Amino acid sequence: MTEYSVDYQGVLEEIQDEVRPFFGKGKNADYIPALAIVPGNKFGMAIHTVEGEEFLIGDARDDFSIQSISKLFTLMQVLGFEGVDIWSRVGREPSGTAFNSLVQLEYEKGIPRNPFINAGAIVVTDILASRSADTSRRIGDFYRMLSGNLSNRVDETVALSEQEHGYRNAALANLMRSFDNIQSPIPDLLDVYFRQCALTTSCADLAKAALPLACGGYSPIAHKQILTVRDAKRINALLLTCGLYDAVGSFAYTVGLPAKSGVGGGIVAVLPDHFSVAVWSPELDSYGNSLVGSKALELFTTKTGLSIF
Amino acid sequence: MTEYSVDYQGVLEEIQDEVRPFFGKGKNADYIPALAIVPGNKFGMAIHTVEGEEFLIGDARDDFSIQSISKLFTLMQVLGFEGVDIWSRVGREPSGTAFNSLVQLEYEKGIPRNPFINAGAIVVTDILASRSADTSRRIGDFYRMLSGNLSNRVDETVALSEQEHGYRNAALANLMRSFDNIQSPIPDLLDVYFRQCALTTSCADLAKAALPLACGGYSPIAHKQILTVRDAKRINALLLTCGLYDAVGSFAYTVGLPAKSGVGGGIVAVLPDHFSVAVWSPELDSYGNSLVGSKALELFTTKTGLSIF
Amino acid sequence: MTEYSVDYQGVLEEIQDEVRPFFGKGKNADYIPALAIVPGNKFGMAIHTVEGEEFLIGDARDDFSIQSISKLFTLMQVLGFEGVDIWSRVGREPSGTAFNSLVQLEYEKGIPRNPFINAGAIVVTDILASRSADTSRRIGDFYRMLSGNLSNRVDETVALSEQEHGYRNAALANLMRSFDNIQSPIPDLLDVYFRQCALTTSCADLAKAALPLACGGYSPIAHKQILTVRDAKRINALLLTCGLYDAVGSFAYTVGLPAKSGVGGGIVAVLPDHFSVAVWSPELDSYGNSLVGSKALELFTTKTGLSIF
Amino acid sequence: MTEYSVDYQGVLEEIQDEVRPFFGKGKNADYIPALAIVPGNKFGMAIHTVEGEEFLIGDARDDFSIQSISKLFTLMQVLGFEGVDIWSRVGREPSGTAFNSLVQLEYEKGIPRNPFINAGAIVVTDILASRSADTSRRIGDFYRMLSGNLSNRVDETVALSEQEHGYRNAALANLMRSFDNIQSPIPDLLDVYFRQCALTTSCADLAKAALPLACGGYSPIAHKQILTVRDAKRINALLLTCGLYDAVGSFAYTVGLPAKSGVGGGIVAVLPDHFSVAVWSPELDSYGNSLVGSKALELFTTKTGLSIF
Repeated sequence: MTEYSVDYQGVLEEIQDEVRPFFGKGKNADYIPALAIVPGNKFGMAIHTVEGEEFLIGDARDDFSIQSISKLFTLMQVLGFEGVDIWSRVGREPSGTAFNSLVQLEYEKGIPRNPFINAGAIVVTDILASRSADTSRRIGDFYRMLSGNLSNRVDETVALSEQEHGYRNAALANLMRSFDNIQSPIPDLLDVYFRQCALTTSCADLAKAALPLACGGYSPIAHKQILTVRDAKRINALLLTCGLYDAVGSFAYTVGLPAKSGVGGGIVAVLPDHFSVAVWSPELDSYGNSLVGSKALELFTTKTGLSIF
Repeated sequence: MTEYSVDYQGVLEEIQDEVRPFFGKGKNADYIPALAIVPGNKFGMAIHTVEGEEFLIGDARDDFSIQSISKLFTLMQVLGFEGVDIWSRVGREPSGTAFNSLVQLEYEKGIPRNPFINAGAIVVTDILASRSADTSRRIGDFYRMLSGNLSNRVDETVALSEQEHGYRNAALANLMRSFDNIQSPIPDLLDVYFRQCALTTSCADLAKAALPLACGGYSPIAHKQILTVRDAKRINALLLTCGLYDAVGSFAYTVGLPAKSGVGGGIVAVLPDHFSVAVWSPELDSYGNSLVGSKALELFTTKTGLSIF
Repeated sequence: MTEYSVDYQGVLEEIQDEVRPFFGKGKNADYIPALAIVPGNKFGMAIHTVEGEEFLIGDARDDFSIQSISKLFTLMQVLGFEGVDIWSRVGREPSGTAFNSLVQLEYEKGIPRNPFINAGAIVVTDILASRSADTSRRIGDFYRMLSGNLSNRVDETVALSEQEHGYRNAALANLMRSFDNIQSPIPDLLDVYFRQCALTTSCADLAKAALPLACGGYSPIAHKQILTVRDAKRINALLLTCGLYDAVGSFAYTVGLPAKSGVGGGIVAVLPDHFSVAVWSPELDSYGNSLVGSKALELFTTKTGLSIF
Repeated sequence: MTEYSVDYQGVLEEIQDEVRPFFGKGKNADYIPALAIVPGNKFGMAIHTVEGEEFLIGDARDDFSIQSISKLFTLMQVLGFEGVDIWSRVGREPSGTAFNSLVQLEYEKGIPRNPFINAGAIVVTDILASRSADTSRRIGDFYRMLSGNLSNRVDETVALSEQEHGYRNAALANLMRSFDNIQSPIPDLLDVYFRQCALTTSCADLAKAALPLACGGYSPIAHKQILTVRDAKRINALLLTCGLYDAVGSFAYTVGLPAKSGVGGGIVAVLPDHFSVAVWSPELDSYGNSLVGSKALELFTTKTGLSIF
């Protein structure tokens, strides 16, 4: 993993060219209108190095829906910023096939396998909610602090759509509640959860917000130690083993970076001590990860030789 | 991840002291007599750096049963040494909870989730067996080439015991055969598989044998490029996401190294471009990983700050 | 299946004696206080023949909570009385082990296996709710019409307790809603469902209410054809194959009558063309069926030789 | 359930006419050639009353492969004729969806749900095998005694084909063996099991062989009490709740008779104290039951009003 002076901008330009053939091979998330109507050939990518350099390409400043990537930031918030030990209420193991998410939750008595599946993220949000009022605003504030961009706000149309299609998440929350692993009133909790998924952000913002995971817990944007060095490493370990649903193994195999994806088409990844990188392209592969985004990250680590392995 | 000059020997000595309170908290594998009778307080650890230095402590030269760690070497053999593309017959994703191994294999039509669960390792051995005769000997030869120790041989008593308790593996093999994912005659195949698990080795040997994963695919012991640089990285990714059964997430979280464990009490791990490390202590935790060995590796990466994250 | 003149009253007296040793071997349902505090040694039994004779013993006129037995009457109501074809929204197969109720519902895309598991009964109630207003009252009215007892009312304390412990049912309803198999607003629907489970009744009432299943669909109490002959037979078939959760096979084997049980300790059964029989004793076996009640019914069919087989 | 003098022959003739439109809607079993090549429009039906009358139609004397119907006779043999209590080794509950047969066997520690699924039938055969030598011949002898037809023999071609496609059954047997619920050497046991499935018989034979279930355990063919009255009832209960794989509920609902089907296209059913009935037509529905045969039995109970409900 030697880098000398990587020409990041040059690499981004090559990638932008080389991903072109992959447009149209995936499919936008379509369970809510706001995600379905985004043009499929949008593509942006942003790199932020630990030395403070930023490299952007394409639609890197365009806003998109953060969706499940928000799970990474609520975890950072509860674990690091608020210093709560959450591991009696959520596990740290990959979830295996999607088909058995509910049976696993049942078999494991309401303890979700990890904080990056929906059930686990709902528990994390529940923990935040139980600590003080105005949870939704606090989650937004924390993210805006990390991204340094005050315009990262909840898209109310998206939040409302999420709510209308949120019966499966309501099933998860109720099942966990039946095992006493949810404390907040469920409608309130789901409202907060759907709102955190409806934050809008951009590749440039995301790369900044993820910097603490590349900088030993320190946010050069917020000028604050957000996480301990140890917790930053641990979250990276969780991302690598649990951050991409049922594609963690393939992603580790082809890309080799701790990362979190969202159905809005965003993926954020880090290489500790080197950089954070965010990519966005709305068409998803069969696992629900950005198809072009995954390809772009694979090209990135292949071209630079920079991965954790 | 800065190392300057780590005092590996000093660290090993500290670890040997600090793991002492953990003896007696785990439990030897007891499904076969040869594993059950090993003294529980055995402890050895070996480090081999990419620069060629070796550091040993405790029982690092004692022989023990390689068991599931053999899965790593048959994968290296088929993927690297024999250059076969195996990914249509075995997946690359973690397996989730143990409780559903058979249903998952059924649900996924006989394609095991990864090469490190039993079903996947049996497929890897089947691929080796279909390529030329005398598979058991070839597997032994490959391992002895990597370890540089010709005395790494099959313990026939262990192999026989495995056979006598191998009905579950026979069930897996037959189920995969019903999906046409096994080609060899099943009794022959299981015989080879049980024999590869019955190889004896030591921490010192294991650390040497794993060096290609730390050295970009090159074995400084065999003086050969065993794997491409890319395949070495990929196997490390697989180890990190799938190498410790249902404890991969916790192990990545607490240790942070690609690793493979066996019920004989061994664990081998690597930090690419730095070192390989092997540890052995026979008492297992509830996941079937060496309890003292896991603790030792956690102490090792905590003390040195050397992990992939 | 010859009966000549069975001495029903004599048989009931023998049974009352012979079940005595079984008190204390089961355990009241305890998830809600109202069920937990019922004296465990209560025992009542009522037989109502198709000729109009009634035989009672013990606490046969005592009120208890109908619980899941209400599922039988909502099914009779929707299928027979309101004449709706429900089989596109609920199956007719036994559910297999309890452990996989949620995964099965997921695997089968929100279609519950049968109308006697909770998920299926919630769908039946949803169908009733979608047909006209005031569902809870209509359900009560239908039952009171069949039992001929206007004092069979909702126990509001029980209904409230059900609500407070109803998170698992809320999970089921939300999961089915995510598959579009629930139409009513979920909180309203669950309210109706919990109220139907909280009806109070007695063995004497239950035996009367079940008579249409013994009389080719005709209720001699309501003086009405409630079901077609064919539907009465079909409901009996469903009861026999699906009426006792994960004990249908054992119950058919030892008792041999179509039956439905509830966690209040009641069981109602019928022998077509002969009689209906209700039994009540609050202590449950490990399957959630009245332990003494099951024993009493086994004694009843053994002594009389009257079963469907 | 009144019969007076049913014109059985007339009913059979009507059925033969009315099932005609259903040919071609199902599909022969095709995993072995001998089943695949049987003409799809074969149809035979045989009724044998408890009074000794026999009514035949169509291909009622043609031979076909007994397949899973043999499970009924090995159960009668072990339970009744040899008097063994088998219920610690096999359950009495329906199996739920097919998709989880292996996980259920694993979850329930190698105890199959009932004697009519493959795993359960293999255990029954294992019990027979452990009681004396020459199991395959004894199974054939018992069936020939019940059918009164010495020409009911193993089709060696079918037996061999079963063996060649029997990997899934081998997986089940090995899994049960890993839980110590199989005692015989597995290859020998499977050989016996595949041979019992390869018996040839006809509707006329089958109806005779099943008579003990209609005659309180007595075989008017063998002139012997084969089962106790109680065991005959119990087997009927098991058939009704477990005899048709994942279609037991629908079959009870539409036909209403205890029955056992086989992928050779045969179904045998009984009405206690009245008759046994066998039907054969090789095209199967999606559950693996004879499509035309199921329809014929539904017509039969609808026309005659004779069912157990």
